[in-house]
Amino acid sequence: MKIGIIGAGQLGRMLALSGYPFGVEFLFLDPSPDAPGGHVGPILHGGFDDAAKLNELAARVDLITFDVENVPVDAIREIAKTTPFLPQPDALGTSQDRLAEKTLFRALKIPTPAFQAVDSLADLVTAVDRVGLPGILKTRRLGYDGRGQFRLRSARDIEAAWAALGSVPLIYEAFVDFSREVSVIGVRSTRGEIRVYPLAANTHEDGILRHSIAPYRNAGLQKQAETYLKRVFRRFDYAGILTIEFFVRQGRLIANEMAPRVHNSGHWTIEGAATSQFENHIRAILGLPLGSTEAIGHSGMVNFIGTMPAVEAVLSITGAHFHGYGKAPRPNRKIGHCTVTASSPAARDKALGKVLKAL
Amino acid sequence: MKIGIIGAGQLGRMLALSGYPFGVEFLFLDPSPDAPGGHVGPILHGGFDDAAKLNELAARVDLITFDVENVPVDAIREIAKTTPFLPQPDALGTSQDRLAEKTLFRALKIPTPAFQAVDSLADLVTAVDRVGLPGILKTRRLGYDGRGQFRLRSARDIEAAWAALGSVPLIYEAFVDFSREVSVIGVRSTRGEIRVYPLAANTHEDGILRHSIAPYRNAGLQKQAETYLKRVFRRFDYAGILTIEFFVRQGRLIANEMAPRVHNSGHWTIEGAATSQFENHIRAILGLPLGSTEAIGHSGMVNFIGTMPAVEAVLSITGAHFHGYGKAPRPNRKIGHCTVTASSPAARDKALGKVLKAL
Repeated sequence: MKIGIIGAGQLGRMLALSGYPFGVEFLFLDPSPDAPGGHVGPILHGGFDDAAKLNELAARVDLITFDVENVPVDAIREIAKTTPFLPQPDALGTSQDRLAEKTLFRALKIPTPAFQAVDSLADLVTAVDRVGLPGILKTRRLGYDGRGQFRLRSARDIEAAWAALGSVPLIYEAFVDFSREVSVIGVRSTRGEIRVYPLAANTHEDGILRHSIAPYRNAGLQKQAETYLKRVFRRFDYAGILTIEFFVRQGRLIANEMAPRVHNSGHWTIEGAATSQFENHIRAILGLPLGSTEAIGHSGMVNFIGTMPAVEAVLSITGAHFHGYGKAPRPNRKIGHCTVTASSPAARDKALGKVLKAL
Repeated sequence: MKIGIIGAGQLGRMLALSGYPFGVEFLFLDPSPDAPGGHVGPILHGGFDDAAKLNELAARVDLITFDVENVPVDAIREIAKTTPFLPQPDALGTSQDRLAEKTLFRALKIPTPAFQAVDSLADLVTAVDRVGLPGILKTRRLGYDGRGQFRLRSARDIEAAWAALGSVPLIYEAFVDFSREVSVIGVRSTRGEIRVYPLAANTHEDGILRHSIAPYRNAGLQKQAETYLKRVFRRFDYAGILTIEFFVRQGRLIANEMAPRVHNSGHWTIEGAATSQFENHIRAILGLPLGSTEAIGHSGMVNFIGTMPAVEAVLSITGAHFHGYGKAPRPNRKIGHCTVTASSPAARDKALGKVLKAL
C-alpha cells in the first residue's frame, strides 16, 4: 500500500511518521526541494497545479490524501476518477472558499457569524450596512494564518479595506466578540466509523495559532461540536480527519472555518491522546478500525513560530516533547512545536508557562 | 545533526521514526536491500564488517549508534576514534560475548547462573560436573532468539551437545528453574542523567520473545534491577538505552544477558510510557534531557513472528496499536508487533488474550 500526499509540509511529515507502522509507504508531491516531508520519505517535485505531476503521483500510489488545501480541485477531480482521493474533493473544494464554507454551515444549521459575499466596493458598502461593524473583510480563497484579512472598525475603513483586498472575490463577516476559541477534531473512516477528540482551546496572535490546551472540558460545547461535525461528515460521506474551528460566545459555538485535514490544534494528540490525529487519519482513509480519541492527562501545545528555541531548554521542562519540522526559520513561519503532558490542568499550565518563557 | 545507524532492522527503523521530531537526519548501514529502515530513511548498502563502508558511514554522519550487536568491535574502535560511537564500543564488545558478559556481571556482583567457559569436550565434561545439570551449552558469540543453544538434561547429552556446537568457543550455564522472566530497560545520557523504565515481564517460546506485559510491579525487584543497571552504566560511562534480562527465582533476580541497545521487551514504551525507549535513546546520545519513563496505564506487547495477522483484526481490539516492520514473512522472523494499552491489568490481559487469538 502506497499513499500519495499532496504537500510535504509538517502535516504530511507527521502523517508519514505515524503511517509507517502500518507498513504503508508514502510518496509526497511538493514544489519545495527541502520540504519537511522530504526528510522522512520520497518526494516528487512539482507544483500542486502541475497536472502532469499530479497524474504521475496518482499513477504511482494506491490512494491520495493531502496536507495543504490550496490544490486546484478541478485537477483533483480528474485524478480522483482513477485513484481514490480522501477526504473527498468536494469537502476540499468547499473548504477552499470561505463563502462556500459558510454557506454550507448555514445549510447544515451550524451557527456562523453574519456574512455576505463582496465582489465590488458597492457590495462592501451594502455588506457593512447589513452585517454591521466591526467586521472582517477576507479573501474567499488562499487565506491562512491571518493572511488576506482586513478588519473594519468603522465605515471610514471601507475604502482602505477595498484598496487592500479588492482585486479578488471577498467575504465580509461580522466580528465575533468571543470569550474563547475552540476547535473540534473528528475522524470518520471509509467504513463509517466516527470518533471525536475532546475540544482544544486555542490562542491565536496575529491570526496564527500560538498555543492550545486540551482537553478543554465543557460537556455542552463538546456535544454541540460533535453534532456539527457529524453533519459535515454526512454531507460529504467524509473519510479522514476533519477540523472545525469555533468562536465561543455566551456559551454557544459559532463556526469560523473548517479544515478537511489534520490540524495544528490537534498536534497535542501525538502524546496527549490514546491515538494521534495523524494515525487516525491514516486508519480512516485505509478503512481500518479507528483508535481511541480519549485524552491521556492534560496537554498543552506551543507552536515555534519564526525562531526555534534551544531543544535542551524545552526538554528540560517536565513532560515536554519536542517536534522540529526541519524547516529553515523565517518570520511567521511555523517551524516546530512542543507538547507538554501533565496529570492535572494546573501542572499543565505551569509547564506551558515555562515553555512560553523558553521561546 | 545526522546520526548513522549500523543496522536497518526494525529497531533502527523505530529509532529513526522517533528521532525525526528532533530535526535529526539518519543514514543506515545495512547489507539488505529491503531492510525495514530503508523505507523511512536513506540507506548505505554494505556489510557490518565492510571497513570501507563503515568509514564512509562515519565520514557522512556526526554520531553513530547501532541496532544490531554483531558488528566487529575492532572495526568500530577504529571509526570511534573520529566519530562518536554510542553506546560505547566496550559495552558492545562485552555484550557480544556471553562469557565476557557473565564475567562482567560477576565482577559487578550481579547474580548470574553458574557458568563455565567451554573450549573442548574435556572442558564440557568438567563444566557439567562443576555447574551441574540440567544446563545449557551456548555459543559465546552470535547467538540470538534462542539460536546456538543446546540444553543438556543428563551427562548422556554431552557428546551430542559438543557435536552440535563444538566448533566455536562456548559457555556452559546452569539451567535456572525460574518462576518468571523480566527485563529492565534504563537510559543514561552523555550528561550522566539516568532514568529507568518499570520492569517488563516476558514470555519466550523456543527462545524467542512472544509477549511482554509492563509495568510488572514489584518494588523489591525493581530496586534490585535498577541497582544492577546502574553498575553497568558506571562501568562503561555508558550513554544510550541498556537492557538487562533476568530470571526471577525465589524472589531474586539472576541476570541472563544484557543488550546495549533498545530492546524488543521495551516496544510497549511507544504507547505505554511517557517517553518511548527509542526517543530516550536518541535524547541520551545527543546529550538532551531525558524524558519521563513512567508507564501510562497497563500495556501488553505481542510479537508477530513468521506471519502477520490481519491489521483489521488487531485494530478492532480496544487499545491496540499495530507496528509492521515492512519485512517479508519468514518462519521465526519478527515482522511486527502489537501493543495494547488499558487502564487496568485485567483489561490489559483481556485485550492481550484477544491479540493472541487473532494470530
